[in-house]
Amino acid sequence: MRVGYFQFDVVRGNSDANLAIIESALAGTSADLVVLPELSTTGYLFESPEALAKIAEPLDGPSVRRFSALAKENETTLVFGVAERDGNELFNTAVIATPQGAVQSQRKRHLTKLEQPLFSTGSPVAAHRVPEATIGAVMCFDAWFPERCRILTQGGAQILCGPSNFGGPDSLDVFRVRALENRVFVVVANRIGQEQLGSVEATFRGDSRVIGPDGAVLLQADGGQELGLIDIDLSKASIKASVMSNDLAAEWSRYQIVEHPPGDPDLAF
Amino acid sequence: MRVGYFQFDVVRGNSDANLAIIESALAGTSADLVVLPELSTTGYLFESPEALAKIAEPLDGPSVRRFSALAKENETTLVFGVAERDGNELFNTAVIATPQGAVQSQRKRHLTKLEQPLFSTGSPVAAHRVPEATIGAVMCFDAWFPERCRILTQGGAQILCGPSNFGGPDSLDVFRVRALENRVFVVVANRIGQEQLGSVEATFRGDSRVIGPDGAVLLQADGGQELGLIDIDLSKASIKASVMSNDLAAEWSRYQIVEHPPGDPDLAF
Repeated sequence: MRVGYFQFDVVRGNSDANLAIIESALAGTSADLVVLPELSTTGYLFESPEALAKIAEPLDGPSVRRFSALAKENETTLVFGVAERDGNELFNTAVIATPQGAVQSQRKRHLTKLEQPLFSTGSPVAAHRVPEATIGAVMCFDAWFPERCRILTQGGAQILCGPSNFGGPDSLDVFRVRALENRVFVVVANRIGQEQLGSVEATFRGDSRVIGPDGAVLLQADGGQELGLIDIDLSKASIKASVMSNDLAAEWSRYQIVEHPPGDPDLAF
Repeated sequence: MRVGYFQFDVVRGNSDANLAIIESALAGTSADLVVLPELSTTGYLFESPEALAKIAEPLDGPSVRRFSALAKENETTLVFGVAERDGNELFNTAVIATPQGAVQSQRKRHLTKLEQPLFSTGSPVAAHRVPEATIGAVMCFDAWFPERCRILTQGGAQILCGPSNFGGPDSLDVFRVRALENRVFVVVANRIGQEQLGSVEATFRGDSRVIGPDGAVLLQADGGQELGLIDIDLSKASIKASVMSNDLAAEWSRYQIVEHPPGDPDLAF
């Protein structure tokens, strides 16, 4: 199975420009799964939900339709971040578009300080079946919550896909440890470039990567625009043994994790 | 609060020799909390439970009594690993001895391949109150299970103490990510030296460290015998905000984790 990432500098507020960059970079490539950055059509910093709502689209809008057409044309599953408009609410959403035209989605649950004023909280996480694998979408800060990645692994995910917009180095270690502790592949696609909004400046580090179930960094981008693809042996994600243990899955099955939906009155446990 | 680690080369099968090394190294030191390696009195590789049982002791045996006396004498809380004998069972146990003479314990839950033939599976994890802080014991491979560290953090632990016997580098990243994702201090005490048993060779890397709630490595040993102590500001473990989020604790409270005791029939969920 051939998987990878495309990292680029997202043009804020211009979906057409970003889709053109993506379509041009992916034209003629052969891959089973390509992960793109978080908010890859809109950019990251917006002064208000109203400002973001002007460019956010529903999942049946023109941007997702273009991604879906690209997935069909290239016979590739694409995982990419968009600003999703659903009625009066906005979500920071990972979309999974398969070559067969299926469109699935996972709304980001854990919003950063900068995202909380713009987006509503996403829903519980679930694994998604695509043609070659079972995958999970773990967008950027969502990866900092190990419970989320464990739920996906227990749900059969073999590859955790991380559309991301991070600047600091810690998220790289976090993603690597998620691979190690769950014995799954991780594909991180982190954007590059910089955005400014008033006094707030956000710099994105790139450093996209493909990580193996033993934590080995199999492929790694630097800080420029880059499409990275690599052949992986997906069966390795089924081997839950490690140097230390015969069966990590038996060990982690000692814990039961329940994710409560937003607004769940049972949350006060 | 002054905390740290003591790493040394454990003499296999000779509790007296190991206790003498520890007593000599800690004599006259001033610290609130010192963490020592896993199985710090017995060593690691034994050919059978019967062979290990000859040196394993109950928690009211002479070795723990000597540790307890040392804790009183130095006015230090000690966290150290022993091979615990309880009737016909052996446990890989972390003991917490306070200056007031209290002895608490936490049996290791997740046993490695080499440990499974020797030890019984430990019980669910819980935080422990010591004079200066609330701490949790997370021995070596137990740290690979993020659920365990989260349960401790939600139970009030401000410092995760990791008596360890590891060789590879991955456990260092695992412990650092536990600090980061829980916003707690982590003190890892990893032994040095080498053991051989038939064709099995185990090399221990040292590299003990004190890690801050922001993931910063505050103090770090190399591969030799070393006592490392550092003053920390424990109040930092109460700040659950990060660069990315105002309140990580609110985010992780979305997940409920239940640890099932060994043999729990409810395990088949």
